[in-house]
Amino acid sequence: MERAVILLSGGLDSATTLYIARDKGYDCRCLIFDYNQRHKREIESAKKIARLSGFAYKEMKISMSWGTSALLDRHAGMPQGRATAEMKKGIPSTYVPARNTIFISLAAGMAEAIGARRIFIGANALDYSGYPDCRSIYFRTFNKLLKVGTAAGVRGKSIRIETPLLKMTKGQIIRTGLSMGVPYEYTWSCYKGGKMPCMQCDSCLLRKKGFREAGVEDPLLERK
Amino acid sequence: MERAVILLSGGLDSATTLYIARDKGYDCRCLIFDYNQRHKREIESAKKIARLSGFAYKEMKISMSWGTSALLDRHAGMPQGRATAEMKKGIPSTYVPARNTIFISLAAGMAEAIGARRIFIGANALDYSGYPDCRSIYFRTFNKLLKVGTAAGVRGKSIRIETPLLKMTKGQIIRTGLSMGVPYEYTWSCYKGGKMPCMQCDSCLLRKKGFREAGVEDPLLERK
Repeated sequence: MERAVILLSGGLDSATTLYIARDKGYDCRCLIFDYNQRHKREIESAKKIARLSGFAYKEMKISMSWGTSALLDRHAGMPQGRATAEMKKGIPSTYVPARNTIFISLAAGMAEAIGARRIFIGANALDYSGYPDCRSIYFRTFNKLLKVGTAAGVRGKSIRIETPLLKMTKGQIIRTGLSMGVPYEYTWSCYKGGKMPCMQCDSCLLRKKGFREAGVEDPLLERK
Repeated sequence: MERAVILLSGGLDSATTLYIARDKGYDCRCLIFDYNQRHKREIESAKKIARLSGFAYKEMKISMSWGTSALLDRHAGMPQGRATAEMKKGIPSTYVPARNTIFISLAAGMAEAIGARRIFIGANALDYSGYPDCRSIYFRTFNKLLKVGTAAGVRGKSIRIETPLLKMTKGQIIRTGLSMGVPYEYTWSCYKGGKMPCMQCDSCLLRKKGFREAGVEDPLLERK
């Protein structure tokens, strides 16, 4: 069984990605980050999902204490009630400097150490195209970097980043996940990280749109 | 004054790099990593050098607890007494999976957050060419990644990695540093991290070669 490192945030995209990798037959190791995000609640969701999937996880703390993002700074305003078309314009204030680059680098270190040749990330370029580090060109360039910058790459066994959700709509993601048994009732999307989803932040609104497109109720809301 | 992030390890290369950046007029912020390295002593050296240079530093802990490197695993053998020509063959056991990629990613996050457009790293490809993440092609590819993968890059204010030592010999590095007043007596190179340098590991031997080439005594040894 080939090993893969899965970046698991606790949101619905990364949970679906984990189940896709499992479905492809990978022996998955989940990597969960505590980077001082406002929505720390997602970390508990990530652990729960890893346990339910039957794979081991590693939790890593990173002190990104340079808060210039609405996701890190508890006092910063958060975009609310935006139409999804509006979300596509410009880089949102929830952008965390170099976040995916940091996450993928650490995943690459872990992958190389455990002999995994795949890193799965639930990035999505369609619904939320404002993040520069969620685009095809970014992942293509990163794959080149892993080829020239790791011992594995130099030895012809390069580590590759897999982005199965990149061009899927939220509805397609959810339908795919439901067919594989992703436990969406335990995923967490809200950026605010309160007791209940705020239903106003970009992440909540995209989730809502996804379940509507998929034609099913959000089991997280039913669970309450 | 333009800001720059300096990756500072406490070794002589990174100390020289800091002084080169200072000499170029950058307002430097040093980034020091505690990644569970055997030679933790270098962290104290890095802090001392940052203080002497007059710039602020940030220390970050990263739990790279996947020990498959002689630099992380206290029980692993360490190459000893090798000729420098021999060091150039293959990837040494002191290679840490994706280390420079992880360090530069975190530096990029910090740079973007504080508005710095330069990351200085004391990588050297001449004397120790075995590390894949110390080669020109690696840094060129990483610069492309920072261009497409950060908000700064997308806005046309990309962060660039600077490698002033890449093609210098150890002797040239030391001569350059001496002309700028680098306090080499506080730098630490030995991979083993004992009380005194072991004078047998690759890092000690390269340091010795450098001071011999520069025609000066190593002030660290004189200090003892």
